Amino acid sequence: MKINHIAIAVNDVEESARIYKEALGASSVQFETVESEGVKIAIIPLENCRIELMQPTGDSSPIKKFLDKRGPGLHHIALETPDIDGEVKRMRGCGVQFLGDVRPGSAGTRVTFVHPKSLHGVLAELCSTSS
Amino acid sequence: MKINHIAIAVNDVEESARIYKEALGASSVQFETVESEGVKIAIIPLENCRIELMQPTGDSSPIKKFLDKRGPGLHHIALETPDIDGEVKRMRGCGVQFLGDVRPGSAGTRVTFVHPKSLHGVLAELCSTSS
Repeated sequence: MKINHIAIAVNDVEESARIYKEALGASSVQFETVESEGVKIAIIPLENCRIELMQPTGDSSPIKKFLDKRGPGLHHIALETPDIDGEVKRMRGCGVQFLGDVRPGSAGTRVTFVHPKSLHGVLAELCSTSS
Repeated sequence: MKINHIAIAVNDVEESARIYKEALGASSVQFETVESEGVKIAIIPLENCRIELMQPTGDSSPIKKFLDKRGPGLHHIALETPDIDGEVKRMRGCGVQFLGDVRPGSAGTRVTFVHPKSLHGVLAELCSTSS
């Protein structure tokens, strides 16, 4: 299992992307809107993973609720596995609880989320590039 | 620049390490106490970086204050660079603010921290393995 990305909630994704790109010396930024999750994302590539800045696209977005409660900051980590179905089964066997079933994510990925109570307060996405 | 580790504040590092090792299917856990930072750490290796679980060693630890205010959860990310002095100089030139000068970290590393206000609410460690 490896880190795929670190997700950060922000109020203004374009302004934050400009700051992060400059501060981290990143070569590029890519923008994407994921309607199903209610977010506009800026992807900042690093050498071994990427940072995703997330701005809510509407008031019903979970990211909006996070920002209202805690302000901008670290939101979740994403763990990548080549076999998401097998990994979910193995983790359920350890008592890990999930937020929903495995479902399509962006760019052909498949994703689910580990409940924060199973990882001592940390929300973790589990993602797979396999179809 | 690449992610070196993701740091998570916890109340009981041994219990959390057991949970994380099992949930993530990690092969090992290594424990370390960093007196200068007031933390006992469990290191969970992943394929491309590691997770560090941090328990405060006393009431004056900054991690104790974080836990009292927000509870267990994501605390900071650590970015690794081969040239920490050059990177700090470059980042200061972009207006990035730091929490203290570059100083010795654990295991021969050199570290400093980017002020969260320079990264929209995210505390980031900058670390280098070069001396």
